Amino acid sequence: MTTIAPTTARDRILLAKDAARSVGLASDALKRDALLAVAEAIAASVDEIVTANAQDLAQGRADGLSEAMADRLRLDGKRVDSLAEAVRAVAALPDPVGRVLDQRTIPGGVTLQKVSVPFGVVGAIYEARPNVTVDITALALRSGNAVVLRGGTAALHSNATLVRIIRAALAAAGLDPEAVQTVDDFGREGARELMRARGIVDVLVPRGSAALIETVVTESSVPVIETGAGVVHIVLDESAPLEWARDIVVNAKVQRPSVCNAVETVLVHRAAAPRLVGPVVEALQRSGVTVHGDAEVAALAPDVVPATEADWSIEHLSLDLSMHVVDDLDAALAHIRRYSTHHTESIITTDDANANRFLAEVDSAVVMANASTRFTDGGEFGFGAEVGISTQKLHARGPMGLAELTSTKWLARGAGQVRP
Amino acid sequence: MTTIAPTTARDRILLAKDAARSVGLASDALKRDALLAVAEAIAASVDEIVTANAQDLAQGRADGLSEAMADRLRLDGKRVDSLAEAVRAVAALPDPVGRVLDQRTIPGGVTLQKVSVPFGVVGAIYEARPNVTVDITALALRSGNAVVLRGGTAALHSNATLVRIIRAALAAAGLDPEAVQTVDDFGREGARELMRARGIVDVLVPRGSAALIETVVTESSVPVIETGAGVVHIVLDESAPLEWARDIVVNAKVQRPSVCNAVETVLVHRAAAPRLVGPVVEALQRSGVTVHGDAEVAALAPDVVPATEADWSIEHLSLDLSMHVVDDLDAALAHIRRYSTHHTESIITTDDANANRFLAEVDSAVVMANASTRFTDGGEFGFGAEVGISTQKLHARGPMGLAELTSTKWLARGAGQVRP
Repeated sequence: MTTIAPTTARDRILLAKDAARSVGLASDALKRDALLAVAEAIAASVDEIVTANAQDLAQGRADGLSEAMADRLRLDGKRVDSLAEAVRAVAALPDPVGRVLDQRTIPGGVTLQKVSVPFGVVGAIYEARPNVTVDITALALRSGNAVVLRGGTAALHSNATLVRIIRAALAAAGLDPEAVQTVDDFGREGARELMRARGIVDVLVPRGSAALIETVVTESSVPVIETGAGVVHIVLDESAPLEWARDIVVNAKVQRPSVCNAVETVLVHRAAAPRLVGPVVEALQRSGVTVHGDAEVAALAPDVVPATEADWSIEHLSLDLSMHVVDDLDAALAHIRRYSTHHTESIITTDDANANRFLAEVDSAVVMANASTRFTDGGEFGFGAEVGISTQKLHARGPMGLAELTSTKWLARGAGQVRP
Repeated sequence: MTTIAPTTARDRILLAKDAARSVGLASDALKRDALLAVAEAIAASVDEIVTANAQDLAQGRADGLSEAMADRLRLDGKRVDSLAEAVRAVAALPDPVGRVLDQRTIPGGVTLQKVSVPFGVVGAIYEARPNVTVDITALALRSGNAVVLRGGTAALHSNATLVRIIRAALAAAGLDPEAVQTVDDFGREGARELMRARGIVDVLVPRGSAALIETVVTESSVPVIETGAGVVHIVLDESAPLEWARDIVVNAKVQRPSVCNAVETVLVHRAAAPRLVGPVVEALQRSGVTVHGDAEVAALAPDVVPATEADWSIEHLSLDLSMHVVDDLDAALAHIRRYSTHHTESIITTDDANANRFLAEVDSAVVMANASTRFTDGGEFGFGAEVGISTQKLHARGPMGLAELTSTKWLARGAGQVRP
């Protein structure tokens, strides 16, 4: 039976570092089988998990947790089953470790191979969503990494139970359970230790609000991969066909408004505004969207809430959308440069030159012509699993698959060669 | 004529960000021709550069600059010519921007392309080596990036002159000179502004001492690529042939002791120590190396300086070498885990199983069997240019070529598709 011994947060992180060695060398089959065992253990522990979760929910009610946050925190039988299912899906993905990415022989005959290797220890700092505990752990283990988790305090019991179940399943399957650590029980100190564990934790993935990500980026000396924030734009160019404009804007806003690839701001070319604004706003409103528009938008459509400067920077994550009429494509590009979070932007146009200019000049992880921004997703891109959407430029950009949880190393094989 | 207007460090960084747009879209030919113009301008300005450098050297003498540091700072006609030559070499490299790295069509027919793009703005913080000013600028521009430089104060006049010459040459060649900025004249505040310019500066490359790198990693909220520090190990396994052991250790230490890929510590398998220590130490001593050894080493060879615990962590960067007898390969691996800076390690062995274990288990940027650690080098690897040796795991690991100064973005092209 594996239990977490009472130690410091630093000790836990060092245990993960130590365990990373064996997990990093584990075979594809062992990693896959261990994850299948984890999935089975989770599915077999519904009652235990739901009971622990009920404790968190009761505490949350006492602390005045919002209904939206309570919903993210809540686990019922069906949600526990989806946790197990997600682990099975990750188990089924191909091993990202050991791929030969480059190969060369240098003069003198030393052969070089650049191979993919696990990072070592992945740290995660996130909010009160127990599904992240399971998702990140599965992705880290599948890619041969140990993981140190710091979830939201509001999910303390749920996460402790999940981690206990996961560790027991790993031990039974023959993978070192110390590869999965939580520092939740050390409160803020746990997060602080993670952020200062440079050289031990190899990469830190913050998941949650912009404020949480900002804190981690500012305070961490461990390299961070930023994910998530999306002030996403769609530009309706002068030539935008009404049908494409309407379908794409409605899909990008309405299909799942709470996610980072949902559109937040629509920019309309002035020459197209009289033709497009009315019907696009009408379609949005029919779907329950509140449109925050500038004066020109308000003049072309009913029930438009006056937009303020703040609307251009906001990630609504709700059925709200900001709409702005711009002079031309230059003005649209300037607006995007100023307000975009570099996640996804799309232009709707039949003008190839404008499409190509937009694709070349917009500096975002995913730049689209004539497609819904909702396509920015690891699943849609065919990666099989969703580590997150990186909005930074180092290491990974855009949807991150398992491969983005690996680093590389060069192997050199010689027969006594020295440098001339 | 381009001159640097009096502004704040922040303004300079914003000018670079703005200029990054046009440099990022510049054609291969324009970038190449602009760099050739820069090379020509540098070569034509020997007197001006050497005069400015003499001011720095005089100031350095007054400030008690060490002879080693003065040597790194010094520019004469020959060294200025090599600066120009280095720029020409970078100009001749293939454009790393616009390569299609992945290509797929997702169900529904949206086509995706992952293409290499410039980072945008590269920041560099380094010490009093004017050659870094020229090297980093050339590499940044060749890969379509703007650059903000913060060199050592001791090189203030040299760097200011080089930047002025570079900017004038760029302007004449039709590339926006604002793409090259220095914040040297703002002293420490310049470095601080660079480190807090997250979202404007895309990546920061510190070059210099371990202390400088540590400061940048700790203080910067801009993503950092760490380069350089190398406590490099060579393991002489039980089966190590004497000739390979001697040739490789001597080459790795003596050929250029001041660089990061030079060996610092040799670990000798106890069973091989009586056979190897004597002749290897003798060969090292013949080449002027001082061997710092443990008691077992001292018992097997003359004139061994007693090693202290500090010797195992030190990057000598001189004709000094630490030598330690270990029980076996396990002990060698444990020593490397504890003291390595994850740059390069090599094992000398004829035992394939041990070689493969070493290659698999050592967690360093470059892991070798039977080759000199001096091969860890962008030039030797065939990359053509040396951005540095990354000793971290995010984005780039090992020798960095021009490709490592690029990020990626996804381009998506559709015809009205929405997510089902």
